[in-house]
Amino acid sequence: MRLSRRGLLGGGAAAAGAVGAYAAGRVTADEPAHASAAPATYDFRGAHQAGITTPAQDRLHFAAFDVVTDSREELVALLQAWTDAADRMTRGLPAGEIGPVEGAANLPPDDTGEAIGLAPGGLTITFGFGPSLFRDAEGRDRFGIADRMPAALEPLPHFPGDELDPARSDGDLCVQACADDPQVAVHAIRNLARLGFGTVSVRWSQLGFGRTSTTSVTQDTPRNLFGFKDGTANVKAEETTALEDHVWVGAEDDPDAAWLAGGSYLVARRIGMHIEVWDRQPLADQEAFVGRTKGTGAPLSGGEEMTEPDFEMPGSNDQPVIPVDAHVRVVHPGAHDGARMLRRGYNFVDGTNPLGGLDAGLFFVAYVRDPRTHFTPVQLAMAKSDALTEYLQVTGSALFAVPPGTASGEHVGHTLFG
Amino acid sequence: MRLSRRGLLGGGAAAAGAVGAYAAGRVTADEPAHASAAPATYDFRGAHQAGITTPAQDRLHFAAFDVVTDSREELVALLQAWTDAADRMTRGLPAGEIGPVEGAANLPPDDTGEAIGLAPGGLTITFGFGPSLFRDAEGRDRFGIADRMPAALEPLPHFPGDELDPARSDGDLCVQACADDPQVAVHAIRNLARLGFGTVSVRWSQLGFGRTSTTSVTQDTPRNLFGFKDGTANVKAEETTALEDHVWVGAEDDPDAAWLAGGSYLVARRIGMHIEVWDRQPLADQEAFVGRTKGTGAPLSGGEEMTEPDFEMPGSNDQPVIPVDAHVRVVHPGAHDGARMLRRGYNFVDGTNPLGGLDAGLFFVAYVRDPRTHFTPVQLAMAKSDALTEYLQVTGSALFAVPPGTASGEHVGHTLFG
Repeated sequence: MRLSRRGLLGGGAAAAGAVGAYAAGRVTADEPAHASAAPATYDFRGAHQAGITTPAQDRLHFAAFDVVTDSREELVALLQAWTDAADRMTRGLPAGEIGPVEGAANLPPDDTGEAIGLAPGGLTITFGFGPSLFRDAEGRDRFGIADRMPAALEPLPHFPGDELDPARSDGDLCVQACADDPQVAVHAIRNLARLGFGTVSVRWSQLGFGRTSTTSVTQDTPRNLFGFKDGTANVKAEETTALEDHVWVGAEDDPDAAWLAGGSYLVARRIGMHIEVWDRQPLADQEAFVGRTKGTGAPLSGGEEMTEPDFEMPGSNDQPVIPVDAHVRVVHPGAHDGARMLRRGYNFVDGTNPLGGLDAGLFFVAYVRDPRTHFTPVQLAMAKSDALTEYLQVTGSALFAVPPGTASGEHVGHTLFG
Repeated sequence: MRLSRRGLLGGGAAAAGAVGAYAAGRVTADEPAHASAAPATYDFRGAHQAGITTPAQDRLHFAAFDVVTDSREELVALLQAWTDAADRMTRGLPAGEIGPVEGAANLPPDDTGEAIGLAPGGLTITFGFGPSLFRDAEGRDRFGIADRMPAALEPLPHFPGDELDPARSDGDLCVQACADDPQVAVHAIRNLARLGFGTVSVRWSQLGFGRTSTTSVTQDTPRNLFGFKDGTANVKAEETTALEDHVWVGAEDDPDAAWLAGGSYLVARRIGMHIEVWDRQPLADQEAFVGRTKGTGAPLSGGEEMTEPDFEMPGSNDQPVIPVDAHVRVVHPGAHDGARMLRRGYNFVDGTNPLGGLDAGLFFVAYVRDPRTHFTPVQLAMAKSDALTEYLQVTGSALFAVPPGTASGEHVGHTLFG
């Protein structure tokens, strides 16, 4: 009998069958109800992939992979193996059927073991396909899918001010693992990388320690490393019409890419923050750059956090009270034909920078229906006129098509490769 | 009235006065009792610094600093400011008296704000002094303390196999911030760095996402990224005699360094793990390298996790059942005149390595009474004959003297600079 990680340590009696019956978003029967009422497991299967509208978990491990084989068969076999392992791990089971400590002594375990005894942690695993999977740097169609590449998956343009590190950018495949326990997220990425040995190599990976987005009305808005609430105006899971309009790809969006219907596009941007410079700015200046108060997150035009900003309200010196270059104004949907994003960003600190400061910032992740209308114009406007830009440095960038979800028996990308 | 971060958001009514009355290790009155019964706050003040015998928190941010001034006065002023800020932040208060969102609009806030609304998270902040603080690379006694440098603070010898990156090694000062919430730990380091602007610069910093040590008998033994339980034989807070023998510096240990009595030495080692290679080793080999089973952590000679290993028990092929090069044998106190360490290590993943794998490993932190007897011989034995060494690569190393704790009104290092 296969036991869950929890059961393995004797902490509970949840056998695999019972685990499989967990409903999405519910607290499991053998899981103590924490004060936050965080659910223990989310279903991996569904019409959409989990990890997009799922209430944003606290921690992230994100990885991009390069496919090191030219064999379509090997690639599809890996996607099947990844699907099975992801389905298992999100239930709190080991990555493989044998597990970390059983099976033959002369074989490597099919799970690495560092998650033994840890709860499922609300783990979600979300997969994406990069432009280079369809056509590589030499223009080759390695996997016979070039004619199904969505038009919206063209690599992002170069944005003014970007200083992109190729070792932190792009990739053939991506995996986003979110969980409330970072060790659970790391365990997931690590075991998927292990399964991919010989088929893929890790191109880059990013840990995020603190969520900066709110994807459900049940969540409080967290803070980024500028100390401000972030994600106030995010598209949230409860906004079903907005999800259809701004997040999910429609069946009619792209005749060459009907396989992507029910999926989305993932934009990842590693945004370094010059926090040492920021920390020396007066409070009023910080608030003017953002266009919101630092305490409650209310717009400078007044009200509460969720109050709609009044961009016309006059301030002093013939200027509006929300400055013309305030972040909230520059990125507001009203300035971009109503385009909104579902963001899932995380704070990061990756050691130090050469200037004697912390290499800190925001790992920006956004899901959009079409990056050409929902991301690029907003990014161009930020690069051109956002007061925050002076304190930001984008060092990594990537775009992925996120296929729809899977039913039991289907593998990630089945609509593309099937 | 100054409110705690929790109080600021209206989530509680704990004013600063009440917060100040929190007893060490107790759950605070306005804090929900989590299943883990993790305490909300630990006293910063005491005979010893907190963060050594404190039950190991889940997350770490560790930073080493270089002092960029030659002024003893400025250095001592920073230590005073750091002491005040650390005392405040461990109570869940902002780093400064004004806080992140109040005070004059034309001044920078004296707290950066990203911890608004977060619980104190069991934060501890622990300070140390590196060899170069006493005598810099040119042999200069910048701060008039060279004659008080402990003999045991001589820089560690070069160990076979080390490939040290100077940008991840050494430092004049160090700060270890441990908390159950990583954003709380990052907030602490970031605000201390902010206070140090112009006096210190960050030399290196390291995040750890998962504790690998157990410093109290109340804690379960966690797992490292080899998937094994780590820290089973650690010196624990309840072993008061062992703490005196192996962790705390005695008043008579070094006549030149009486100021260090009640303190300790901190050894930090950034140990990269070749996890991709490890994951391809058979289970029996992994267990032979460690000398314990992967499941329960029991020694290969039998029993339970806490059973003492029987190094004489015969195995097959005229070899002992615990191999001669097993990690547990090589580092066992019995092989080192009984020397033990109090370890406080953390798992890390810092992106990727050039081989297409994860840059993953263990950030080893140990507190010892004398590194010459309690660390160096063990490390030399590991480098020479430990089977695990083939899977490890040490890329950073540092040694610090950790001064004793402070009473109210005293600053960190008062016995050295007072």
